Amino acid sequence: MSRLQLLISAIEFAATIAFAVSGCMEAARKRMDVVGVFAVAFITAFGGGTVRDILLDRRPFFWVEHQAYVWLVFGLSLVAVPLLQARHHRITERAMLIPDALGLGLFSATGVGLAHDMGMPMFVSALMGVITGVFGGVLRDVICNEIPYVFRDHRPYALCAFVGAWGYLLLDALAAPPVVALFASAALVAGLRLVAVWRGWSVPSWP
Amino acid sequence: MSRLQLLISAIEFAATIAFAVSGCMEAARKRMDVVGVFAVAFITAFGGGTVRDILLDRRPFFWVEHQAYVWLVFGLSLVAVPLLQARHHRITERAMLIPDALGLGLFSATGVGLAHDMGMPMFVSALMGVITGVFGGVLRDVICNEIPYVFRDHRPYALCAFVGAWGYLLLDALAAPPVVALFASAALVAGLRLVAVWRGWSVPSWP
Amino acid sequence: MSRLQLLISAIEFAATIAFAVSGCMEAARKRMDVVGVFAVAFITAFGGGTVRDILLDRRPFFWVEHQAYVWLVFGLSLVAVPLLQARHHRITERAMLIPDALGLGLFSATGVGLAHDMGMPMFVSALMGVITGVFGGVLRDVICNEIPYVFRDHRPYALCAFVGAWGYLLLDALAAPPVVALFASAALVAGLRLVAVWRGWSVPSWP
Repeated sequence: MSRLQLLISAIEFAATIAFAVSGCMEAARKRMDVVGVFAVAFITAFGGGTVRDILLDRRPFFWVEHQAYVWLVFGLSLVAVPLLQARHHRITERAMLIPDALGLGLFSATGVGLAHDMGMPMFVSALMGVITGVFGGVLRDVICNEIPYVFRDHRPYALCAFVGAWGYLLLDALAAPPVVALFASAALVAGLRLVAVWRGWSVPSWP
Repeated sequence: MSRLQLLISAIEFAATIAFAVSGCMEAARKRMDVVGVFAVAFITAFGGGTVRDILLDRRPFFWVEHQAYVWLVFGLSLVAVPLLQARHHRITERAMLIPDALGLGLFSATGVGLAHDMGMPMFVSALMGVITGVFGGVLRDVICNEIPYVFRDHRPYALCAFVGAWGYLLLDALAAPPVVALFASAALVAGLRLVAVWRGWSVPSWP
Repeated sequence: MSRLQLLISAIEFAATIAFAVSGCMEAARKRMDVVGVFAVAFITAFGGGTVRDILLDRRPFFWVEHQAYVWLVFGLSLVAVPLLQARHHRITERAMLIPDALGLGLFSATGVGLAHDMGMPMFVSALMGVITGVFGGVLRDVICNEIPYVFRDHRPYALCAFVGAWGYLLLDALAAPPVVALFASAALVAGLRLVAVWRGWSVPSWP
């Protein structure tokens, strides 16, 4: 079990960096100052879980329990301003694809599990999974005065989280142990997301 | 009493559709994908009540208790992408005017009633009524990267809800039964709104 | 102690006006109607404390306990539309500099104190102080469809609140009485902010 915990912590760590870095890049594109870079990185990294916990009325937040993550995002923001050049954006985005997909998987699987444990109805639990995975990015884009990317890029991202969330609920209904449901669901989300990027899948558009 | 419940449920149902459809249309105007259409429809339909319940610290949310409404909005979003053409927008908006006004009435009357029952001060209760009625639309516009329509169109919408909310509080102070206050307030809001649209009333503008 | 309470109330009063006026001006720039002016003024004045209280799960909100402030902001919004001309904006902004700095100090010191009393970790407490001081302005800009000014103007504002919040935590660690920590922190924030404006300090920018 301690190995499992270690694996989860490693994914959590990598994913938090991936999410925070995407916040730093968006803030840099908008020429924000260091306060803005930190705020947007923080909101991108922890926004999804925070919105879920506000909706489910859970406290303390993830970032209150794990203050080290707040320091991590703070440190990233400080080095982002001098180090992150516009010409690095593309490489950085590519490097973040895998940790981002793993984070989407882990966070949405955790979200659906938490909501389900609290007795939420199925569809609501699935939505809580998706919110946990994607709302950090939604809030990032709202703060940066953009229409949320995840709502308009016609690429499966929230959809992967949604499918994976139902996967969790199905496995739970089949009496799979929570750990199995969590990992299978997270792997399904991350796998779907990576295949979708790799094969260039797109969501049907307006006629 | 069961007839009354049926009437309330019917208004609730029609109003939820009206609110969700206004979200679908706004998302369509922004060329969002199906994820965005569902998210915006959902937020428009349930955002007002959700913000009120977060402020009042009430759980579970309306859409958690009535999972069927989440499915309804989900279904609407799925049919919106293939069916809703730009040329239908004007007709759809007109068709939604009456259910939207009824929903504004019902939701703001419910909001002020809930806040008042929880012992909130009068002005705060009135604001909770207005928030319940209009904040779905405010969040819709924020997500769609617009200045909220209700704050800038110089047409009475939130004002109708505000007047109706004070109507509720007045009736309650006069010891009217809650059901009477609820219906009178909702009817006042919906009536004011429809007359305002019909007569083209407008709010004083900047000099 | 009653003199202290009076002083706090006086700063609170002046700062609430300063925050609300900045909301009125931003709403006026966007040609909002009276509903929008009130909404933006309200959100600017009470948004920071409200976000903090939602995050800390504290109720009732400041503006629920002090209904008079809601009436004050309401009154300000009503007179803003006929009275506030575009040519007054610059003078008004200058007149508001000192009450705004005092409010930033008082609100952020109160925020860090509350979070610290609830046993939040140090960094989280400091962030709660900053959020209390600046999130009203952040929400104002999001509603007005702007990138938050405090994230991009390269002037120390949130940073002053951040430094002052750590000042509070330091004094508390040195066993200073809460009242002393509160006033010293508030004075530090307000002083830093006024010096920063006066000397034209700026935050390092992108290369």
